[in-house]
Amino acid sequence: MTQPLSQPVYRRILLINGPNLNLLGLREPEIYGHTTLQDIEQRLNNTAEKHHIELISIQSNHEGDLVDAVQHHGLLADSEDKIDAVIINPAAFTHTSVALRDALLATNKPFVEVHLSNIHSREPFREHSYFSDKAVGVICGLGDLGYDMALNYFIESFYKP
Amino acid sequence: MTQPLSQPVYRRILLINGPNLNLLGLREPEIYGHTTLQDIEQRLNNTAEKHHIELISIQSNHEGDLVDAVQHHGLLADSEDKIDAVIINPAAFTHTSVALRDALLATNKPFVEVHLSNIHSREPFREHSYFSDKAVGVICGLGDLGYDMALNYFIESFYKP
Amino acid sequence: MTQPLSQPVYRRILLINGPNLNLLGLREPEIYGHTTLQDIEQRLNNTAEKHHIELISIQSNHEGDLVDAVQHHGLLADSEDKIDAVIINPAAFTHTSVALRDALLATNKPFVEVHLSNIHSREPFREHSYFSDKAVGVICGLGDLGYDMALNYFIESFYKP
Amino acid sequence: MTQPLSQPVYRRILLINGPNLNLLGLREPEIYGHTTLQDIEQRLNNTAEKHHIELISIQSNHEGDLVDAVQHHGLLADSEDKIDAVIINPAAFTHTSVALRDALLATNKPFVEVHLSNIHSREPFREHSYFSDKAVGVICGLGDLGYDMALNYFIESFYKP
Amino acid sequence: MTQPLSQPVYRRILLINGPNLNLLGLREPEIYGHTTLQDIEQRLNNTAEKHHIELISIQSNHEGDLVDAVQHHGLLADSEDKIDAVIINPAAFTHTSVALRDALLATNKPFVEVHLSNIHSREPFREHSYFSDKAVGVICGLGDLGYDMALNYFIESFYKP
Amino acid sequence: MTQPLSQPVYRRILLINGPNLNLLGLREPEIYGHTTLQDIEQRLNNTAEKHHIELISIQSNHEGDLVDAVQHHGLLADSEDKIDAVIINPAAFTHTSVALRDALLATNKPFVEVHLSNIHSREPFREHSYFSDKAVGVICGLGDLGYDMALNYFIESFYKP
Amino acid sequence: MTQPLSQPVYRRILLINGPNLNLLGLREPEIYGHTTLQDIEQRLNNTAEKHHIELISIQSNHEGDLVDAVQHHGLLADSEDKIDAVIINPAAFTHTSVALRDALLATNKPFVEVHLSNIHSREPFREHSYFSDKAVGVICGLGDLGYDMALNYFIESFYKP
Amino acid sequence: MTQPLSQPVYRRILLINGPNLNLLGLREPEIYGHTTLQDIEQRLNNTAEKHHIELISIQSNHEGDLVDAVQHHGLLADSEDKIDAVIINPAAFTHTSVALRDALLATNKPFVEVHLSNIHSREPFREHSYFSDKAVGVICGLGDLGYDMALNYFIESFYKP
Amino acid sequence: MTQPLSQPVYRRILLINGPNLNLLGLREPEIYGHTTLQDIEQRLNNTAEKHHIELISIQSNHEGDLVDAVQHHGLLADSEDKIDAVIINPAAFTHTSVALRDALLATNKPFVEVHLSNIHSREPFREHSYFSDKAVGVICGLGDLGYDMALNYFIESFYKP
Amino acid sequence: MTQPLSQPVYRRILLINGPNLNLLGLREPEIYGHTTLQDIEQRLNNTAEKHHIELISIQSNHEGDLVDAVQHHGLLADSEDKIDAVIINPAAFTHTSVALRDALLATNKPFVEVHLSNIHSREPFREHSYFSDKAVGVICGLGDLGYDMALNYFIESFYKP
Amino acid sequence: MTQPLSQPVYRRILLINGPNLNLLGLREPEIYGHTTLQDIEQRLNNTAEKHHIELISIQSNHEGDLVDAVQHHGLLADSEDKIDAVIINPAAFTHTSVALRDALLATNKPFVEVHLSNIHSREPFREHSYFSDKAVGVICGLGDLGYDMALNYFIESFYKP
Amino acid sequence: MTQPLSQPVYRRILLINGPNLNLLGLREPEIYGHTTLQDIEQRLNNTAEKHHIELISIQSNHEGDLVDAVQHHGLLADSEDKIDAVIINPAAFTHTSVALRDALLATNKPFVEVHLSNIHSREPFREHSYFSDKAVGVICGLGDLGYDMALNYFIESFYKP
Repeated sequence: MTQPLSQPVYRRILLINGPNLNLLGLREPEIYGHTTLQDIEQRLNNTAEKHHIELISIQSNHEGDLVDAVQHHGLLADSEDKIDAVIINPAAFTHTSVALRDALLATNKPFVEVHLSNIHSREPFREHSYFSDKAVGVICGLGDLGYDMALNYFIESFYKP
Repeated sequence: MTQPLSQPVYRRILLINGPNLNLLGLREPEIYGHTTLQDIEQRLNNTAEKHHIELISIQSNHEGDLVDAVQHHGLLADSEDKIDAVIINPAAFTHTSVALRDALLATNKPFVEVHLSNIHSREPFREHSYFSDKAVGVICGLGDLGYDMALNYFIESFYKP
Repeated sequence: MTQPLSQPVYRRILLINGPNLNLLGLREPEIYGHTTLQDIEQRLNNTAEKHHIELISIQSNHEGDLVDAVQHHGLLADSEDKIDAVIINPAAFTHTSVALRDALLATNKPFVEVHLSNIHSREPFREHSYFSDKAVGVICGLGDLGYDMALNYFIESFYKP
Repeated sequence: MTQPLSQPVYRRILLINGPNLNLLGLREPEIYGHTTLQDIEQRLNNTAEKHHIELISIQSNHEGDLVDAVQHHGLLADSEDKIDAVIINPAAFTHTSVALRDALLATNKPFVEVHLSNIHSREPFREHSYFSDKAVGVICGLGDLGYDMALNYFIESFYKP
Repeated sequence: MTQPLSQPVYRRILLINGPNLNLLGLREPEIYGHTTLQDIEQRLNNTAEKHHIELISIQSNHEGDLVDAVQHHGLLADSEDKIDAVIINPAAFTHTSVALRDALLATNKPFVEVHLSNIHSREPFREHSYFSDKAVGVICGLGDLGYDMALNYFIESFYKP
Repeated sequence: MTQPLSQPVYRRILLINGPNLNLLGLREPEIYGHTTLQDIEQRLNNTAEKHHIELISIQSNHEGDLVDAVQHHGLLADSEDKIDAVIINPAAFTHTSVALRDALLATNKPFVEVHLSNIHSREPFREHSYFSDKAVGVICGLGDLGYDMALNYFIESFYKP
Repeated sequence: MTQPLSQPVYRRILLINGPNLNLLGLREPEIYGHTTLQDIEQRLNNTAEKHHIELISIQSNHEGDLVDAVQHHGLLADSEDKIDAVIINPAAFTHTSVALRDALLATNKPFVEVHLSNIHSREPFREHSYFSDKAVGVICGLGDLGYDMALNYFIESFYKP
Repeated sequence: MTQPLSQPVYRRILLINGPNLNLLGLREPEIYGHTTLQDIEQRLNNTAEKHHIELISIQSNHEGDLVDAVQHHGLLADSEDKIDAVIINPAAFTHTSVALRDALLATNKPFVEVHLSNIHSREPFREHSYFSDKAVGVICGLGDLGYDMALNYFIESFYKP
Repeated sequence: MTQPLSQPVYRRILLINGPNLNLLGLREPEIYGHTTLQDIEQRLNNTAEKHHIELISIQSNHEGDLVDAVQHHGLLADSEDKIDAVIINPAAFTHTSVALRDALLATNKPFVEVHLSNIHSREPFREHSYFSDKAVGVICGLGDLGYDMALNYFIESFYKP
Repeated sequence: MTQPLSQPVYRRILLINGPNLNLLGLREPEIYGHTTLQDIEQRLNNTAEKHHIELISIQSNHEGDLVDAVQHHGLLADSEDKIDAVIINPAAFTHTSVALRDALLATNKPFVEVHLSNIHSREPFREHSYFSDKAVGVICGLGDLGYDMALNYFIESFYKP
Repeated sequence: MTQPLSQPVYRRILLINGPNLNLLGLREPEIYGHTTLQDIEQRLNNTAEKHHIELISIQSNHEGDLVDAVQHHGLLADSEDKIDAVIINPAAFTHTSVALRDALLATNKPFVEVHLSNIHSREPFREHSYFSDKAVGVICGLGDLGYDMALNYFIESFYKP
Repeated sequence: MTQPLSQPVYRRILLINGPNLNLLGLREPEIYGHTTLQDIEQRLNNTAEKHHIELISIQSNHEGDLVDAVQHHGLLADSEDKIDAVIINPAAFTHTSVALRDALLATNKPFVEVHLSNIHSREPFREHSYFSDKAVGVICGLGDLGYDMALNYFIESFYKP
């Protein structure tokens, strides 16, 4: 993962947000904070660009759409358009979507799992994730700062000597 | 929840029917009865109108469509179009959809869960519901009369002094 | 279940209320409401009479008394005095009384199980019922309106063509 | 299931492939082999035609689309277009889709469940299937040959005296 | 347990029948047979008398009554009136009554547990008994013949040299 | 809970003993000691009177009687006759009576749970109590001294400044 | 099961004893008694003959031998030599032999399961039987008298009018 | 696994049938079909010979005999007589025989597990197999066609380029 | 345990307090009260001295220190310095320390387990104790009065005739 | 958490590292990386100082030492020396130390739980943490970058307007 | 177990090896080593003879044969031929044979359980043994040295003063 | 692991004894025997010296001390002082110490786990070990001879050709 001299290597990261995360800023702000998903995507984009990273963002309430997106960007796209890593907040799909897990595994790309709230202090069924055992790592409970941390992790791992 | 004098307050209820309920009247009538979903929606609509309630009905086999609908009518619509309550028969999603649960919780509206058949005398996996612990109440096994009961419950709770 | 011409067929329904339900209106009204059990029995009686139904009500804190009553009205009484259906709120016995379950099954009569509060949002042990798998259906969380719904269910099933 | 004299009876089989199976030949070939789904569908089609069977193939990453397809071909289509049997590889939906199970049961058609890999030697959660207890039978671990076997099973059961 | 010469030693056995067994002959005869409990008690009494045994019979739907009876006959009665053994069909109390178990243990008398039907081929909750681990033995599934067998067991154990 | 000057405030405590505790002194003395229940009630009464406390004692083998007593003394009696606290040894009902739990909760009075033997070193089913999570506290294994301790606890909590 | 006039109908019962039961009288007599298996078989034979029943006895420590015997006497023998019922003490195979269960089910003959000791008061793994749910009934803890009881049960069921 | 020019390579497959499968055609034909095991072995033999495969068949009700056979043909025989693959229907031993599992693993040969009936729709204990996680694949519920499929699988895998 | 005439027998009790109990009075006073551990030890000491009992107190956050102390005072000290009993509040070690359990068992001294708060109404993991099954008894939820009760228990058991 | 004008508010963070983390850089570097704990503490210190934060670091293999440290810095120190937050990698104590959990809760300070490796892809017992449900959030699998992220989180939460 | 003067007391030890252990040296040598069972038996025999011990060795793949052997040598043989102890490697029967357990218990002889490989680091089902709770001790994972250790244990226990 | 000619290679083994094992000879001798730990260490030392092995012994009741010792001797000491293997009797820490497990794994040295008593016939919680799955092997129930066996195992594995 060394970095060539004069021409920066462009990297691509897919940012996936699962169901109901389009409600960020509207829904139960005491749990999820007031910032909207657009705000977050914009902020992450700013950071990404500074490090020659293209951030591709998708949010959907439809499991199939997320599977399609992972397949396209991770596997079916032209190789110069393929992503290098994934940041995913699967939200409710954390606990129910084997299809999304399988799609991520099919791409063979490293991914970091992010949760805005601390899933360990909510309903017991939120303790189980179909993603964590295959993720590089997991960040939860630190609000939308978790996305920045995940992005920083990949920046570090792309460019550190 | 008092009721003004001359001008009736209009209320809105979202009626959600989950996967395969479009087959009502076609599928295993010995379990679910012969009435079609359209018949039921029409009958409920008649009752609702008499009590100044607008009934918005949706059925889908797509989890994402139901999540979108709950978000729209419960949270994103103009405030004069927002619903006051939900009647939901999640059908198969009862046991599998955290996304729909989360959408309902995001709206912060009371909902009654209805099942046509008695889920306690079918396969063991039908005993667990992702909705019941957050519902106002649950009605099961009483056929499509369960919808009328749920509607009557909200009529009572809207208008009783 | 057709209905003869000039002389109405009389039906009988046994209304069973389990332990501590005699405290209705006194005990934790924020959960169970302010109406007393006598109020409810009177209201149901009024409805029943309009449909040529005799409502026989019993409440007891003694499991054996309820078993005796079910046996008497459901099986041992003269055949012209036998009940046609049961509405039961087993309360605490929901989770502990196999004897009451067995008595109901011995009568071979349809019964609807009613709970005033939503048992799915209380202690975990209240999730299990010794009655639900054998009931026609279950209504919970809708307050004492649940009894009216159960009565209406039987009225419908007795008299609909 | 006898076979008329001069005019062959046409049969219809619905071949369903669940999420990520469109990646066959691309994804983890050491597990799933190099053949694409189109290759398989073509090969099965050739066999089917020789036995007067119309093979209708669908693959989707969207649970709702598969439910719609099962409903249409199994129940809602004109009776001369209805399928006689189903071959299904539910993939990730094996472990999560009650909706697809319910749709299949609603059609009342026999179905054979196929898995390319041996689900018994993978993650523990892949041991549970929402389909196996209602399937005619299950074939797993034999690669795409499993589809041919399932097709042969139905050919045998359609035409054997 | 030897037997004196000219004057027979009188023994006493308490026969306990739990809830709903007063319905024997009325209730689900395909499971429990047509003989009434009175018939059985009479038949057992005849056998008992031939062996100088006094049979004391009680049936109740009230757990407390059975506990009182066990205490009285097993512990509180005058010593010349105390029982030597117990035959018990706890029926529904098999699965729910620790109080009856404790009363039996307090008497320190041997008891045989009898069930008319085979509890191993009914609902799973009927598999667990609060009595079996402390019983001398258990007989189930052999109808009311089970009572005769239990009585014969005690006759054998009282009088065999 | 301060104490007025010249006229002592009278308090009332209900002492409940569950099934088979009437056998104290008769039954398995190596576990429960030789003192009778009357001895204990008398001793506690002596202590209570010295602190202006009326002790109301009840023992029954009938769950319903205990429920009735709790309802009467805790809720239905005239307010000058109502109890302020409960000391309960539910004995076998510890593990089986939701009805008694519900009755205690309905009174909203603090209660201390007492067991003569150490329930943690007996059968595994005795580990679970339907009372402990709602009790102020639990004392077990210290013989009938446990009742004195419970009484002292309430004396302390009534009169300490 | 009526009994012809002058010529008695001969019946056949297969008595199966599982592993280590050849040690009866030698092994842990405080649990199993002093009588040998040969004594028991002789005694049962005497009773059987009086009722025109041929008793075929087998004991083996080899699961396969017992399966062979059940197949031969229950299914493969000439029809005039086939057994009418089975008395089985599967001993250790109670908890481990699906093969013997399957053989018994294949014969479609009623069988009674007998255990000399009370399996409910021994190691927990002895609680589960691969036979009880398919047996007519189960007798345990009553020593070798259990065999006589099982034989009497079949005598009763063969010849009672 | 390429195939030499003029002289066909002979392969050997061991066909193992577990306990009670010698009853095929006699036992519960509605579940297992009418064909005898000899019919099946003959039919498979015909197919095998056409592909230069020697089929060695064994059926036994004795676990030890099957273990011996697997050891002999898979490991101890002269190397020109060793088998290349195994087709096994372990029947009841599916759920109980670690010895047979260990013998198969010791041979290091690929094996396919076949069940005539669908083990997923029978007793719950039939869900667990000591073989499936080590098998190449599993076929169940497709009757004796399952054996042909397993044989075809090995033919394909032996001779495909 | 009789008491000699003129010279009192001195007894020794070891009072053990586990981790974080040094924070009593500082930490969450609404749960544990305002009294410090020193206050409690002083108060108990006063009572002890009146009954010729030497109270040896230890508190530590280090499991090993408590094990060392139990070994020393219970087993390794000169016999005239050995303790006669233990009062222990293991706090967090209740749920995690087998070492402390083993040390107590090694001393063969009776011990009473005390908890300030009611462990049955806190996190589920606090329900399990490594001490309760070997304790004489357990007192929980009665605040620091629990220590006095435990001390009184031993005073009673030392000196009662 | 507003920030005064001219004089920066000093904050204190306690950095706790559990057993074996002193081996960082020596032990299994493929899992934990090559950086030593001193390197990490130095790096974090540099960041902390820039934000007017004092970082107090402790590592120990002794549970009691960590409990003592948490008590001292979080509760017992002079109020101007008390910490404002905790960053903790409990390592092995994650799964075993209730004492450390209790100490942290006693301080009532927010803490973030960090793990270097992804505990979800290691032994199953590492899935359970005695800390996560009470932590603000959890970071795992991102190597020692996780500590920086936790520090950044507190910097953000201390100083953001 | 003292040893007479001039004439050595002969002891007898039965060495039992379960299924597939005849393959030692052939099967997966990386797990079980290269030594054959005959080598081991010879080596143990040499040691045994030096201590006046007769070693009787048996290996079988047939559970019944091992049960027969244990019965014969442990119980049925002439008393001067009876064994004094057993060394057993039950192999696969460790997890499945209650019959062998019962046979060993019937002999009332001490036995040591030996496993060549470490059963704790293999499949989870190998964790449970039907022998360990009744064995004197268990040795696993130390290869065939485990047999020598077991033999040495008995030599020590036979002859140590 | 061959041994050079003239100069013996010195090996080092760390012998670890967990909490309460310093009581050997004092504590419950009927379970653990009369020999003291010093006796055992001396005896093992004698054997070790004969084979050019240095035995380093540690016993502690403090988990942290054992972790420190393992780290020091296994990893942090000068390489000529490092141990080659570990013999560990973790005693109570068997069931509770992940920290000690992690320390052992960090050293990457083979270790044998020894228990004096048979942990399979004591309390159920003693069945689980945090060490066994990573140990070379486990010896239990053979008293202090188990240490000698473990030492012999390493002698064999160090010096056998």
